[in-house]
Amino acid sequence: MYAMSTLNLRNGSVEQKRQQIKEYFIDSFNTYESLFSCLDSDNAYYERPEKLRHPLIFYFGHTATFFINKLVLAKLINKRINPHFESLFAIGVDEMSWDDLNDENYEWPQVSEVMEYRQQVREAVLTLIDTIDLSLPIDWNSKMWPIIMGIEHERIHLETSSVLIRQLDIACVSDNGAWPRCPDSGEAPKNALIPVEGAVVTTGKPFDADYYGWDNEYGNVQENVADFKASRFVVSNGEFLTFVEAGGYQNPDYWEEEGNRWREYTQATHPVFWIKSDSGYLYRSMLETFPLPLDWPVDVNYHEAKAFCNYLSETSGDLIRLPTENEWLRLREQAGVTQNVYSDEFNIALSKFASSEPVNINQSKEWFDVVGNVWQWTETPIYPFDGFKVHPLYDDFTTPTFDNKHNLMKGGSWISTGNEAMKESRYAFRRHFFQHAGFRYVKAEHPILVNDFDYESDTQISQYSEFHYGDEYFAVPNFAKASARFCIEQHGERPHKKALDLGCAVGRSTFELATHFDHVDGIDFSARFIKTAFSMQERGEIRYNLIEEGELTSFKVRKLSALGIENTADKVAFAQGDACNLKPQFSGYDLIFMGNLIDRVYSPRKLLQEVSERLNKGGLLVIASPFTWLEEYTQRAEWLGGFKDENGETLSSTEALAAVLEPDFARVSSPKEIPFVIRETKRKHQHTLSEFNVFEKR
Amino acid sequence: MYAMSTLNLRNGSVEQKRQQIKEYFIDSFNTYESLFSCLDSDNAYYERPEKLRHPLIFYFGHTATFFINKLVLAKLINKRINPHFESLFAIGVDEMSWDDLNDENYEWPQVSEVMEYRQQVREAVLTLIDTIDLSLPIDWNSKMWPIIMGIEHERIHLETSSVLIRQLDIACVSDNGAWPRCPDSGEAPKNALIPVEGAVVTTGKPFDADYYGWDNEYGNVQENVADFKASRFVVSNGEFLTFVEAGGYQNPDYWEEEGNRWREYTQATHPVFWIKSDSGYLYRSMLETFPLPLDWPVDVNYHEAKAFCNYLSETSGDLIRLPTENEWLRLREQAGVTQNVYSDEFNIALSKFASSEPVNINQSKEWFDVVGNVWQWTETPIYPFDGFKVHPLYDDFTTPTFDNKHNLMKGGSWISTGNEAMKESRYAFRRHFFQHAGFRYVKAEHPILVNDFDYESDTQISQYSEFHYGDEYFAVPNFAKASARFCIEQHGERPHKKALDLGCAVGRSTFELATHFDHVDGIDFSARFIKTAFSMQERGEIRYNLIEEGELTSFKVRKLSALGIENTADKVAFAQGDACNLKPQFSGYDLIFMGNLIDRVYSPRKLLQEVSERLNKGGLLVIASPFTWLEEYTQRAEWLGGFKDENGETLSSTEALAAVLEPDFARVSSPKEIPFVIRETKRKHQHTLSEFNVFEKR
Repeated sequence: MYAMSTLNLRNGSVEQKRQQIKEYFIDSFNTYESLFSCLDSDNAYYERPEKLRHPLIFYFGHTATFFINKLVLAKLINKRINPHFESLFAIGVDEMSWDDLNDENYEWPQVSEVMEYRQQVREAVLTLIDTIDLSLPIDWNSKMWPIIMGIEHERIHLETSSVLIRQLDIACVSDNGAWPRCPDSGEAPKNALIPVEGAVVTTGKPFDADYYGWDNEYGNVQENVADFKASRFVVSNGEFLTFVEAGGYQNPDYWEEEGNRWREYTQATHPVFWIKSDSGYLYRSMLETFPLPLDWPVDVNYHEAKAFCNYLSETSGDLIRLPTENEWLRLREQAGVTQNVYSDEFNIALSKFASSEPVNINQSKEWFDVVGNVWQWTETPIYPFDGFKVHPLYDDFTTPTFDNKHNLMKGGSWISTGNEAMKESRYAFRRHFFQHAGFRYVKAEHPILVNDFDYESDTQISQYSEFHYGDEYFAVPNFAKASARFCIEQHGERPHKKALDLGCAVGRSTFELATHFDHVDGIDFSARFIKTAFSMQERGEIRYNLIEEGELTSFKVRKLSALGIENTADKVAFAQGDACNLKPQFSGYDLIFMGNLIDRVYSPRKLLQEVSERLNKGGLLVIASPFTWLEEYTQRAEWLGGFKDENGETLSSTEALAAVLEPDFARVSSPKEIPFVIRETKRKHQHTLSEFNVFEKR
Repeated sequence: MYAMSTLNLRNGSVEQKRQQIKEYFIDSFNTYESLFSCLDSDNAYYERPEKLRHPLIFYFGHTATFFINKLVLAKLINKRINPHFESLFAIGVDEMSWDDLNDENYEWPQVSEVMEYRQQVREAVLTLIDTIDLSLPIDWNSKMWPIIMGIEHERIHLETSSVLIRQLDIACVSDNGAWPRCPDSGEAPKNALIPVEGAVVTTGKPFDADYYGWDNEYGNVQENVADFKASRFVVSNGEFLTFVEAGGYQNPDYWEEEGNRWREYTQATHPVFWIKSDSGYLYRSMLETFPLPLDWPVDVNYHEAKAFCNYLSETSGDLIRLPTENEWLRLREQAGVTQNVYSDEFNIALSKFASSEPVNINQSKEWFDVVGNVWQWTETPIYPFDGFKVHPLYDDFTTPTFDNKHNLMKGGSWISTGNEAMKESRYAFRRHFFQHAGFRYVKAEHPILVNDFDYESDTQISQYSEFHYGDEYFAVPNFAKASARFCIEQHGERPHKKALDLGCAVGRSTFELATHFDHVDGIDFSARFIKTAFSMQERGEIRYNLIEEGELTSFKVRKLSALGIENTADKVAFAQGDACNLKPQFSGYDLIFMGNLIDRVYSPRKLLQEVSERLNKGGLLVIASPFTWLEEYTQRAEWLGGFKDENGETLSSTEALAAVLEPDFARVSSPKEIPFVIRETKRKHQHTLSEFNVFEKR
């Protein structure tokens, strides 16, 4: 067995590089087809051992089709090879939830037809590699990029297909000698926790990196990782057996909420590649079944790994959990693993076996299997680094996984090749999914706050997130910021202890007001808005999908730090509330700002009465509104202006406002209009003028 | 009896003017109160002889309240005298339709209370006249303007109240000698038609005119009036009697459709101020009942006057109708009436009697009663002159009457005073209303096309009318014009016989394309849009109400001539039609433009197929769209791009368009975005980019 390492995209001559790319492509295509040769008969291609995935025939065609679809998209070819196949094999179902069964029926083609199709694709890609414009370095914009992308994509499916084969009935596979497993096994070694010194971990790759990367690897992030201890070995079947025998699969206390749902749904009682038999547990490798090798790593999903940690915490009295991504990277440093690309020094990249091997073979200082053997689950849901952007040819590779439902695995397995077998690779799967994945546990001082950080695809939240924290359109300055600037300027030398941003939406002006006020409360009726504002405060970051056109979206990350207001986060407090019926603690303000609120409440009069009571004497009330009165928000009888009054005379909202406030307030300056733009799609926007009315409380 | 003439607002000294205004105010207030002294008892104030109007107590308070309401609005006073009265007496019901009864109950105050209130208002206004800033000339912006407005307003109600008193039961009125009627009557003189030479009539007053005017009098208009003949006398009771006796009120053939509805509703059998008695018809003047004076003018509404003309047409074989406003003005010139302000040379302005007098007294050359005695109905619904704008203190004086339901009356009656007794005055009433109004008839070559010209208050039509023909917002150039310019530029030297503007909405780009093409068809699915486009073509003008804020609107008139494209009106044709299923005659085009259409049809593919068949070889197809796909217009399965395609790849609408058109079209230039703004309120707008895609038919 052998797998070429991922290519350096910058060195050597153009002709050398062309030759290397051809070899790398052929290596990938051949290895992939070789893997499928382990299937006992054509019938095996149509089995679905994993109900959440297509049968293997799909994946057999899929990696070839991927080349063609990306090459069409990149306009490198203008004629499809087999439009029917290229639709049929286009979209997998890997991202389905485990409680979301796929009942669709497909009419799959014959294996020989797909093999013939693969042959056509092989020739087309080879021709293209020979003829395409090429200069070095190869980067995101190079015409060669989609070819490399196709190869790396196939290498991912080499691994995932090997997992599906491992899940097939043993009668469906045959050991043809090309994919030999490790022959050795023995007693499980006793595990131990070894200290890892805390340090700053820096990760993320630059856009001019030497090697191919998926979008999520680029950018950078720094984190100060505290001291922790990491287990010497990844958890072996033997070590995990204590949990199974302790009734771990029957005790819901060990499982996280999502884990319990998975456990109840699947009725699992032991790891998926274990087989209960009269003579004890057997073990399923990709092609064989044999007695459980106690010193090999256990293959589990995140839920099982986490349940084991919880069990161990209980029995040890220590805080045991999985490492974070950065703890894993820190461990890698401490263990002296420095390679960027891994090959035969670990059980990785098919350099040793078509299976795991004992957990006490591959040593790096005091630890084993820091890299290779099995992937290691982490506590970290995948997230975008600073500077993240999608590649235009594969804009949905990562962003759908920024949902807090996909956890990162690190280190690679025996069949991780190409980009997978690199320090910088970042692969994330749903927590219930199976790969050749196990885990190492750590003992830490502090629990990891499980990241409940969702990315926002709610249209209104997305629009407002962009409105508050995103780009400017038609050269109209950010309205939330301009509003706060206006308030601060009007407020002048008055006391500035406490301000209220009433109807704060997703919170930008609350933060901006806090550049001047000691404390600012942001209140909105929408819990969804407040949740977004709160995310920005707590994490300094929000994520959302912008609608571009129809169903097409683009992913956005916005950070408080990029706006220069990260220091205000501890001066604001967000709360959900009814502006017309505020809780008693919201009072004693030096300034109350209501941005685009008054024409969206059920009783503007009640609102004004409410805020009047909450404002300090001499304090400012700033009311900004386009006065777009609509019955759907405010019954006609409650409108404040915008109609002919009982004397039949025109009553503008500007006048009505002053009239209602008259007993307790004096107008400070003439009304002023400030524009704002809310982006709806990449071409459609609302462009509105909000009139700012400033009053001082007598 | 005596009434002061309306004041010259420009001559003399400030102190003289103050004095004159006081006198004019007192004259008005006194005359008004004197009129009400004709009521026999306080009870008469609460009678409602005309179900469509408030009782007289309302009008007694109303003219005083009007001063206060306008002075508050003008911020000349900041404290109301009696807020309850000023709401109660604010809004009349004059504008109600005759089939729209008012059942509301009012709690009216005592007459003495209202009299006391009038006294307070009198003092307040007199104080204000003494103290207000005053410089000459007095114009729209002067602080004195609302005072003059209040006086002129009261003079209108002097006349309308006299009509209501005339409609009261005779027992409710008493002749106290102050309001004497004409004592003379006799046989009706035989009428005759006297030729009037055609000429250009120019009318409308400048904003620096010498005398007070209502908004509708300003601006200017010119019309070439053709030769016609005008009756020597206004129609007398005697002349009208022939119609009554010929069964005119029972014969629906003489009546216009609206007239028949009025006739059937009221069951009228003779003029309203005639009373059928055993000894023949009696006549009701304001305060008396006596045998029908056959030589006095008949008092009728428009419907009755028009029915008489239709009867006379039938019996004479001539085309008899009412004069237009401009025919009346032409007659006035020909009759040598040159005064701008009328007084004692006619039976007008209370200079002679508190009633009509015989029709053969007041002679001007060959005609009688060109001015005074009774108002004369015209065929002309009131319309705005070029340059029309509303006065901000009374923005609903005229604009609600630009609805084709209010016809102009000219010449004034015996009780028309102030601005009413002027050449330039323009008063319009619903066609079923009664004033001291009769008519003169004319014989003309051509019938008047009854103006079915409504002003548009439909929100969408208003928005699109402004979008196509109105102002520019945010400095974004007119989109319909820019679209047409773009099409013409792209079209270059190709044949330019025939173009199609598909989805033309209210038609601006159709006209603009016709600056280059010999003929342009404009087609839209909306009959309401096409009606507006057609109005612009036929009349060169459209009218609509723009939403400002809430229910507040402003009135707009837009003319093709002001846009410099009046010459295109005979090169365009508008039709209602389904763009996805065009009628066969719409073909053979050199250019087809579809502006913001493709994402609003049920089948974009069918649309493209349709237009492809209608375009000449070598012709251009210009498709402009923001590609805002929405299920409410286009089912998801019909979208053209804006989603991930069957290969899972991003398919933009720009690409999808080219792909669908590929067999028959070649793309001519790169897509280009052109912005547009649709105004929704005075502060809220849609601001969108439309992408222009140009294809040439192979």
